[in-house]
Amino acid sequence: MIKRLLIGQPLSSDAEGHTRLPKILALPVFASDALASTAFASQEILAVLWPVAGAASIGYLVPLSLVVVGLLAIVVTSYFQTLHAYPSGGGSYIVSKENLGMNAALVAGASLIVDYVLTVSVSVAAGVAAITSAVAPLRDHGVLLGVGLIALLTLANLRGAKESGALFAGPTYAYILLMSGTVVWGLFRSFSGSIHAIVPSTPASGAVLNGVTLFLLLRAFSSGAVALSGVEAISNGIQAFRKPEPRNAAITLMWAASILGVLFAGIAVLAGRLRPVYSERETILSQMARHLYGHGVLYVLVQASTAAILVLSANTAFADFPRLSAIVAADGFLPHQLASKGARLVLSNGVAALALLAGALFVAFGGNTSSLIPLFAVGLFMSFTLSQAGMVVHHHRHRGSGWRWKRVVNAFGTAATASVTVIVMVSKFTEGAWIPTALIPLLVLMFKAIHRHYRRVAEELRVPDDAAPADVRLSVVVLVGPLVNRGVLHAVSFALAMRPHRIRAVNVSFGDGAAAHLIEEWARHAITIPLDIVASPYRELSHPLLRYIDALDEEDRGDLVTVVLPEFVARRWWEHLLHNQSALVLKARLLFRPDTVVVSVPVRIEGRRR
Amino acid sequence: MIKRLLIGQPLSSDAEGHTRLPKILALPVFASDALASTAFASQEILAVLWPVAGAASIGYLVPLSLVVVGLLAIVVTSYFQTLHAYPSGGGSYIVSKENLGMNAALVAGASLIVDYVLTVSVSVAAGVAAITSAVAPLRDHGVLLGVGLIALLTLANLRGAKESGALFAGPTYAYILLMSGTVVWGLFRSFSGSIHAIVPSTPASGAVLNGVTLFLLLRAFSSGAVALSGVEAISNGIQAFRKPEPRNAAITLMWAASILGVLFAGIAVLAGRLRPVYSERETILSQMARHLYGHGVLYVLVQASTAAILVLSANTAFADFPRLSAIVAADGFLPHQLASKGARLVLSNGVAALALLAGALFVAFGGNTSSLIPLFAVGLFMSFTLSQAGMVVHHHRHRGSGWRWKRVVNAFGTAATASVTVIVMVSKFTEGAWIPTALIPLLVLMFKAIHRHYRRVAEELRVPDDAAPADVRLSVVVLVGPLVNRGVLHAVSFALAMRPHRIRAVNVSFGDGAAAHLIEEWARHAITIPLDIVASPYRELSHPLLRYIDALDEEDRGDLVTVVLPEFVARRWWEHLLHNQSALVLKARLLFRPDTVVVSVPVRIEGRRR
Repeated sequence: MIKRLLIGQPLSSDAEGHTRLPKILALPVFASDALASTAFASQEILAVLWPVAGAASIGYLVPLSLVVVGLLAIVVTSYFQTLHAYPSGGGSYIVSKENLGMNAALVAGASLIVDYVLTVSVSVAAGVAAITSAVAPLRDHGVLLGVGLIALLTLANLRGAKESGALFAGPTYAYILLMSGTVVWGLFRSFSGSIHAIVPSTPASGAVLNGVTLFLLLRAFSSGAVALSGVEAISNGIQAFRKPEPRNAAITLMWAASILGVLFAGIAVLAGRLRPVYSERETILSQMARHLYGHGVLYVLVQASTAAILVLSANTAFADFPRLSAIVAADGFLPHQLASKGARLVLSNGVAALALLAGALFVAFGGNTSSLIPLFAVGLFMSFTLSQAGMVVHHHRHRGSGWRWKRVVNAFGTAATASVTVIVMVSKFTEGAWIPTALIPLLVLMFKAIHRHYRRVAEELRVPDDAAPADVRLSVVVLVGPLVNRGVLHAVSFALAMRPHRIRAVNVSFGDGAAAHLIEEWARHAITIPLDIVASPYRELSHPLLRYIDALDEEDRGDLVTVVLPEFVARRWWEHLLHNQSALVLKARLLFRPDTVVVSVPVRIEGRRR
Repeated sequence: MIKRLLIGQPLSSDAEGHTRLPKILALPVFASDALASTAFASQEILAVLWPVAGAASIGYLVPLSLVVVGLLAIVVTSYFQTLHAYPSGGGSYIVSKENLGMNAALVAGASLIVDYVLTVSVSVAAGVAAITSAVAPLRDHGVLLGVGLIALLTLANLRGAKESGALFAGPTYAYILLMSGTVVWGLFRSFSGSIHAIVPSTPASGAVLNGVTLFLLLRAFSSGAVALSGVEAISNGIQAFRKPEPRNAAITLMWAASILGVLFAGIAVLAGRLRPVYSERETILSQMARHLYGHGVLYVLVQASTAAILVLSANTAFADFPRLSAIVAADGFLPHQLASKGARLVLSNGVAALALLAGALFVAFGGNTSSLIPLFAVGLFMSFTLSQAGMVVHHHRHRGSGWRWKRVVNAFGTAATASVTVIVMVSKFTEGAWIPTALIPLLVLMFKAIHRHYRRVAEELRVPDDAAPADVRLSVVVLVGPLVNRGVLHAVSFALAMRPHRIRAVNVSFGDGAAAHLIEEWARHAITIPLDIVASPYRELSHPLLRYIDALDEEDRGDLVTVVLPEFVARRWWEHLLHNQSALVLKARLLFRPDTVVVSVPVRIEGRRR
């Protein structure tokens, strides 16, 4: 009931085709991540520079942003080729697998998993910052706010991708409109002289500029580079586009990248004119919007749409993480459950796994964007690098039209993103980049252990074509308590109905004289099964019973031992706590005994006076 | 292995008699609680008065302490009679049950349960305060320290009561010696003029004294009255004494009460001379010991033995809580598991339950003694009152020698403790006394629900003397996946060995074409069981299968349906997460289907290359 209400009616497998998205809806779903990064990337560049260079940091914003936009152009050009080469889905994992082999693919898969989890945490953290910039009283409740938002996203995604598209289109388009409007209006007013900078420009002293080392600039660039997050999303989710998928996806990617580049550069230029003051309490975007619009409706709209697109950008990961883990699971490197679709044709287990991981990370880092950013870029650029290196091999193998030129493009992309990966790892290592650097190899090891397990299970379970069911005989042991009741009679009836080769009943006695009474009762109820009493001086059930079964087994080795015991099934959950505790321990022990089957014969207890 | 190392070798039921305690060991085990309360009761009286009366509070300490000692005398006199009237164990629960009826007994039982849990929390909190008074750097880690101490106590008690006695005798006797020595030495030096008060005596102003209302004094008295905690312990644990139990227990109780009374009054008088300053950072006992001994060895010894006896006093509850819950469980008002002894002849489940409850409470209240005290006294005095009211009825019924006089004693005790119960409830209601006031009735309701459940189960399970096992026929359904593997063959073999009346195999198909392949395989492996394919458009296992079984049942209503399915059993814990997920859901559903038995045929996976 509650599940239905929250998640909606189940969808039949036949409904599959309908969940594909038109471009107008695919843009917000798959590009909100890329676009939303404009809301925090500039802020994070300043977060690195400000402690050293202060207000002079603003001067570095435009050049650094242009380098990031250049990198974006390189990566996007690379990805156009991927979309056409892999029309059925060309995430880094698939491209690496086909061209670089399984090990590279697993590294790509692990990088992407880390990346998606961080996309959710970082976007939600930045979204919360946008909200608390505008609504000061919420500042102490950021973590709670973020967890609530993650929960909402999880629900939306358990409902299914199509409805998500409709739900998220509004805020995304609103953000594009409001933010580009703000940039244009702000620049117009600044150049026309009708508005002044927030703080007057002061020439930086030589001492300050000496502090701005190349290493510092690299660290600032590493923070800004996360603006590229989301470019991967479209090629990974290409199967959610309408046919022809590669063309529709390419057009969407071009739009997303253009808007992203223009907005990101525009915000940097505007910040250079308006000169906001970096602060952890209010984002620079909020400061600039307030400077332009005061506390009016427009300011509230800008902040609201910023928060909305940031929270929804986390949705990109909610669309991609389950898709990727389903692919990896289908290859046998993650639990099979991640590959099965739920009642609404959604990869529900993947959605739930992402929600838990991202939520935990968000809480662990206190919902602070700047603490999460150093963890973010490693996985992102690692996967870019592998994807493009894979494309280089692809061109070399397939030699399509213009392959030499295309190979140069991808090789250049590989070199660029590989350099960025190294820059990020080195410049941010002690600030958190060590976490993904250590985690990605561990994930790869986990993938391999899971794969080894599934392969061995398949090997062990495989039977020759001519194998037929074996002819087995059953030895049945009925385990009974100190009293003959409905449960005991029920278990005895069941055991007799199995018509076993051998049958015995056994009672484990704790030495309190109940055994003698049981023997009497046994005769009174005319039970034909021979009854054995096993003494247990240490008041323990499992050990004496296991020894008894071993002895029974000795007598006739060919039999399959079947232990039959009554199990009480109560109506209410708490009533279960009052029964079957020792049976549970026993069943767990017998699970590991070879050639032994345990049968719990349920005795239902109504719990109401009849 | 680890269990053995921590808890010790299992003990046979025959070893039971040996766990009885001589008086020299029974005193520390059963009276440490009562004695330890001298370490915090004075402090808690001041905690109430100080915010209003400041340093003048010290003046109220002696009179209030004398009232508490008077109350102690009344209660102990009452309990002497209980020990002789109930030589096999006369806790409040048993006395109430025999004389006042089951409802009163359940109220007493609930009061004692609340009381024991709080004994542990409060004693550990006060013990931590004694440690952090002396070792300032530990002040920020009080909660962690307390949780560690509770864990240690739990382990000690899982080993068994006798060894606990040996372990705890040292600190208890050390505390008695050191604390009485401190009182005598302190008073001697103070009266001989060789030491001055910590703060000079200043006459309190009229305004301050006006603030000391009767209500405030009642609140302070309520805090001090917790010094009586532990008097109940001896009569509850009388069966752990050597024979003759009543006499040995009475002597121990007299010793415990005398030491308690003298120490408690002595500390109050000493505080009146040395005038310590109430503070949450250092206990008054620590201040006085430091004033007398400086920072030397004696000071450290006093603090260490105080901490030790406080922590060990929690041990009284660890001895009593499991005993009480075993008695209540044997009456059918608590889960039966609480009445069964573990491998070391200890009521292990009771020990574990107490550890969890007390640990949770300690953490929830941040390990603060003063916050826990208001919760403490309600249960304590409620159980005293019921116990003594029961004794009044007892004398009236049995009319032993001097019953009239004894009845007057107990009636006076009842009136006194009943008044204290009301005083505590009213004067501390908003500070926490509302919690036990609400909790005790809820516990009584829980007891009754459990009892109702057990009674109904017994009723429902009861069979007439001439009832014999029914003659049933089995309808077997083998549930198979999309592939014929070792697990499927194994399940089929088992199902055939049951020689059922009817047998069918069923595969739930998610519509991916695997069914056709399965039908082929079925023929290739020469499986004789007819195979049905059930379509599941919503990719769900349980619903279609339940419908299938219902249809099968329709055909022949007399059969017992048995669902046989293969279950993978892996070696390592994490491997289990990779299998059997949907089977688990299915089994949970089938548990509630009438006349249905589920048999999981285990297929063991070695997980190693063989």
